[in-house]
Amino acid sequence: MLILLKKDASRIEIENVKSHVLQLGFTPHEIPGVQRVAIGITGNKAKVSPDNFLSLSGVVDVVSVSKPFKLVSRDFKPDKTIVNVGGVEFGGEEIQIIAGPCSVESREQILEIAELVKESGAKLLRGGAFKPRSSPYAFQGLKLEGLEYLKEAAEKTGLKVVTEVKDTETLSAVAEYSDLLQIGARNMYNFSLLEKIGEMKKPVLLKRGFSSTIEELLMAAEYILARGNYNVILCERGIRTFETYTRNTLDLNAVPLIKKLSHLPIIVDPSHGTGAWDLVPPMAQAAVAAGADGLILEVHTHPEKAFSDGYQSLSPKTYLSMIEKIRKLELVLERTNEVLA
Amino acid sequence: MLILLKKDASRIEIENVKSHVLQLGFTPHEIPGVQRVAIGITGNKAKVSPDNFLSLSGVVDVVSVSKPFKLVSRDFKPDKTIVNVGGVEFGGEEIQIIAGPCSVESREQILEIAELVKESGAKLLRGGAFKPRSSPYAFQGLKLEGLEYLKEAAEKTGLKVVTEVKDTETLSAVAEYSDLLQIGARNMYNFSLLEKIGEMKKPVLLKRGFSSTIEELLMAAEYILARGNYNVILCERGIRTFETYTRNTLDLNAVPLIKKLSHLPIIVDPSHGTGAWDLVPPMAQAAVAAGADGLILEVHTHPEKAFSDGYQSLSPKTYLSMIEKIRKLELVLERTNEVLA
Amino acid sequence: MLILLKKDASRIEIENVKSHVLQLGFTPHEIPGVQRVAIGITGNKAKVSPDNFLSLSGVVDVVSVSKPFKLVSRDFKPDKTIVNVGGVEFGGEEIQIIAGPCSVESREQILEIAELVKESGAKLLRGGAFKPRSSPYAFQGLKLEGLEYLKEAAEKTGLKVVTEVKDTETLSAVAEYSDLLQIGARNMYNFSLLEKIGEMKKPVLLKRGFSSTIEELLMAAEYILARGNYNVILCERGIRTFETYTRNTLDLNAVPLIKKLSHLPIIVDPSHGTGAWDLVPPMAQAAVAAGADGLILEVHTHPEKAFSDGYQSLSPKTYLSMIEKIRKLELVLERTNEVLA
Amino acid sequence: MLILLKKDASRIEIENVKSHVLQLGFTPHEIPGVQRVAIGITGNKAKVSPDNFLSLSGVVDVVSVSKPFKLVSRDFKPDKTIVNVGGVEFGGEEIQIIAGPCSVESREQILEIAELVKESGAKLLRGGAFKPRSSPYAFQGLKLEGLEYLKEAAEKTGLKVVTEVKDTETLSAVAEYSDLLQIGARNMYNFSLLEKIGEMKKPVLLKRGFSSTIEELLMAAEYILARGNYNVILCERGIRTFETYTRNTLDLNAVPLIKKLSHLPIIVDPSHGTGAWDLVPPMAQAAVAAGADGLILEVHTHPEKAFSDGYQSLSPKTYLSMIEKIRKLELVLERTNEVLA
Repeated sequence: MLILLKKDASRIEIENVKSHVLQLGFTPHEIPGVQRVAIGITGNKAKVSPDNFLSLSGVVDVVSVSKPFKLVSRDFKPDKTIVNVGGVEFGGEEIQIIAGPCSVESREQILEIAELVKESGAKLLRGGAFKPRSSPYAFQGLKLEGLEYLKEAAEKTGLKVVTEVKDTETLSAVAEYSDLLQIGARNMYNFSLLEKIGEMKKPVLLKRGFSSTIEELLMAAEYILARGNYNVILCERGIRTFETYTRNTLDLNAVPLIKKLSHLPIIVDPSHGTGAWDLVPPMAQAAVAAGADGLILEVHTHPEKAFSDGYQSLSPKTYLSMIEKIRKLELVLERTNEVLA
Repeated sequence: MLILLKKDASRIEIENVKSHVLQLGFTPHEIPGVQRVAIGITGNKAKVSPDNFLSLSGVVDVVSVSKPFKLVSRDFKPDKTIVNVGGVEFGGEEIQIIAGPCSVESREQILEIAELVKESGAKLLRGGAFKPRSSPYAFQGLKLEGLEYLKEAAEKTGLKVVTEVKDTETLSAVAEYSDLLQIGARNMYNFSLLEKIGEMKKPVLLKRGFSSTIEELLMAAEYILARGNYNVILCERGIRTFETYTRNTLDLNAVPLIKKLSHLPIIVDPSHGTGAWDLVPPMAQAAVAAGADGLILEVHTHPEKAFSDGYQSLSPKTYLSMIEKIRKLELVLERTNEVLA
Repeated sequence: MLILLKKDASRIEIENVKSHVLQLGFTPHEIPGVQRVAIGITGNKAKVSPDNFLSLSGVVDVVSVSKPFKLVSRDFKPDKTIVNVGGVEFGGEEIQIIAGPCSVESREQILEIAELVKESGAKLLRGGAFKPRSSPYAFQGLKLEGLEYLKEAAEKTGLKVVTEVKDTETLSAVAEYSDLLQIGARNMYNFSLLEKIGEMKKPVLLKRGFSSTIEELLMAAEYILARGNYNVILCERGIRTFETYTRNTLDLNAVPLIKKLSHLPIIVDPSHGTGAWDLVPPMAQAAVAAGADGLILEVHTHPEKAFSDGYQSLSPKTYLSMIEKIRKLELVLERTNEVLA
Repeated sequence: MLILLKKDASRIEIENVKSHVLQLGFTPHEIPGVQRVAIGITGNKAKVSPDNFLSLSGVVDVVSVSKPFKLVSRDFKPDKTIVNVGGVEFGGEEIQIIAGPCSVESREQILEIAELVKESGAKLLRGGAFKPRSSPYAFQGLKLEGLEYLKEAAEKTGLKVVTEVKDTETLSAVAEYSDLLQIGARNMYNFSLLEKIGEMKKPVLLKRGFSSTIEELLMAAEYILARGNYNVILCERGIRTFETYTRNTLDLNAVPLIKKLSHLPIIVDPSHGTGAWDLVPPMAQAAVAAGADGLILEVHTHPEKAFSDGYQSLSPKTYLSMIEKIRKLELVLERTNEVLA
């Protein structure tokens, strides 16, 4: 349920509505908007009637929300959310680029790649330090050592750090070293981790599970918002289908659909979404044309020597030429905060 | 197997190689190229050795092709194929738009929509007359009457006609009334129909089955080329996945992948690929940015009254504004005949 | 809509109701039952009200059917249908076994395998003569020659012939040589073929498309019944999923689900459903335990030399030992005509 | 790599081989067998040659294993593993039944259901106390209170307790109250949790993720075995496909396939695998006929009042009649420790 307040509702009126919600045993979520404040209500105790709120001072309307996701929905918050990652805005006019290697492999490697990322004009550096791998015998990342190198590379270049958080045990360490916490596809259903991150204020990049419906992705984001962290960026990274020529099927339908259903920014990962470096540039262009707020890309100065995902990593030359084309495309696209169509 | 001839090979040398292939019990396919002629060999009788051809006059090399598809492959024909549909070129620099209703419903309806399509600058009109439907009780199209109306609308506006062929029984009638024969997703495995169409010279629009791999789509095209009809345009129209928010999952990975694997043009159907009119404009943009050679779109002057697929049909206003954006996008994309990346 | 008649309704009353249906522009389908006759109504012209029929003599009730499939549904015909294939009953107490090679390869081969099938106690012989293949260069069957050998083998052993019909062109030839017409997975959406078969009285084995929903399978059967051919046996043969260790994912849920939704017999093809001979015996057992009315199996006296599907063909030894186990299982299963659970 | 020792190898020889493995920087895993001891080697440092071990006393052969999973594979341990859960054996001759409600809802509820489970002859009681749910607003279980009730119900009836562990935080509490730790489908890729459980000796029931390949399931089990816990029971519970009539597609192919690839026991969950109570009895029968070592079932004394999964829960009457049929079936199946076929 969503309580809409008058455009000029006072702070006292707002707080009064919130305390009323609390008294009824629910949780109020204040949702700031360009035009007016709204207050979302969550909690699964009992049914609540609009009449409980319509008579309160400052309230203009009470809307019931039938979708299973509430706080993430456009019904709750019609204005698009802009997530600020250390000064870099996701969901605004600019298309943001996150680039870097699959894994931090050494100090030299990440420093070299960071320079390339900087040169391209991108503002965020990615690199895995704690890697969830299908095999217990595969390279699991440099862990804390990797985080140190990543941080150093970011500081030298002025880039922001994006890295994956693997579990609740290493969450605080990873949070300390990063500007944007990535939750990987395999952790999208890890509700205990989502809840812990919901209690932080740190921006989060939440990747769609490779067999998750869009509703499930939005519900996973809802877990984070419901605990008070509204800084969530969603990410489409390809889903599992019967097709075997590509590693995954990049579901770009998700981009306009999520923009219709939710106010949260949505970016795309064409590296995992295709699994082949030569499909990345056209699919990156496609993602941007579909309305994505950003891209996350695997790039490596020596793809043939990468510890993991080498085949889907862009070489410096392909990467730079691709970014140039993306920037040209950006100029003709009309990026707005409006729901599409 | 592919026999490459010298750049200046004479007609006599070419014919000599072909008759040698025939003598060995195989079928020769002359593949004209910008630089040189090549001769593809198909047939499943026995193994053949390169030595059989290397000594012939005019031959420079013999290449074995390990992919299951041969005539459609880039290995066989490195230059991109341009399919000419009554003067409209698919696979060249221009992005072609095919637009119209799901079904021809009446003379008035198709005449009205044809005017709209003409106004948008598109060059081809679509409309179903023989409709394959999941239910025997659903509207199956106006059949011959529908073809008459479609033809009339096309002639009045100077548009080319694209319509679906449902079976071998109605193939010759449909071929008479249309410029581009559409094979729908449900008929992609109808090998007898593919063979019959392979024996005609008429251009064909071959849609990917909704659960077909890209390899199977290319093999279906191979059926047509193997019978001598090289005028095949491929079409991605969405695949069946676990996602239920969209009618299908539009697999845009298919676009750059097919351009890598095959010389045939590839277009995209975002109407069926999404199933929702408001997702069509962003996905049409995405398709074009991914490198598609054209779009096939469902548009209706009264979507709310459409006999079928109303929810995914564009209104005139949305359609015209979308085409305008597509044309802007086209200007910044570097469309070339080269394999991407 | 379904019109239920009194238990003792006379032939005159029945015919009167049917002519009334015709007068209203619909098609009546007389559905005989153990207890009473019912008349199903199909046609998509306009809405019809129960009041049109309730006052007619002999009518007890009029039931509206909301499912998209009508004639195939349990609502229309609560009693299970028994399809009689040259004296062999599908849908009754006995579990029927159809066995044979993927393709008829030679006279000797099919004669030898027919003897094996006979020895096992199975009553039907399968073998492909017209083969739909993904590649135009693959073995497409011995065609008419193959049908001759198949017929000869069946006559020598007293087995009934099951073979695939590939297209409308060869339908009458195939129908002449076979007792049960198989429609393969790739032709499940070939509505023109379904309609042609609907006009014959020949028993049909309709295989589920490898990406068809159960509703689509039932709608395909509806096409056949709507034209008057009620002798349809359904077949689950595995669906396409992300799993790659098996050729298909055999969806045994389909067995009890179809028995709940429809009165038609349902059999299972564990050879295509698994793609591996050593998974066939356990999955054949599972199919029977799930309630299947029969099995269709690939067996070959020399699997290693089979032209197609050799890896999924059972050797004589494995086949015979498997049939023995199936017969033991049959004894403890309570097979009834009732809807399960 | 796998080192096979002589049948009569002494403890000193065995320990000598193991210390040699350790010296080379790898981890030895002693795998007891009926006939002989084998020592598996894991670790991803460098390549190791068979020559390193062939000359050691007691060694007969060194086998390289190319599959990505090692300790779980039949190559490593040809004999089937029997997992002992408080005296109840999984993987032996008897088919084990785990039954109970989706969630523990109250003391009365679980006590009542436990009596029913006991009456049926089943030996294990299931019930969720910590529930991972797609929505943050859905019932998340009674938590510790639920575990107390579950334990009490088990003690009163002599049943063993099976309950889900949701995260590493609550692992030790859940382990204290349960005999068999269930890892749910959503946690199959939670490698940190798998590793923690690998360090315990507690038996584990590892469910297949709803979009996991069989190889990924075996790799998840490998994570547990690699840390020293060999007491793993696998569970097929349905996968996500395009079919919407059933909640999931129960992939029974997984049963014989896993028995071929691995020595670990495999059970089936037809309640989640179908999502409909009336499909559970036939699919439970099918699972057992496919070779499953057990079943896990949702049963409720008042399905219509269940907090979750009511529609797929069996009523007492259906449950008891189903178990009776399963026991009859068990008698005719030849259950052996051998690889099938």
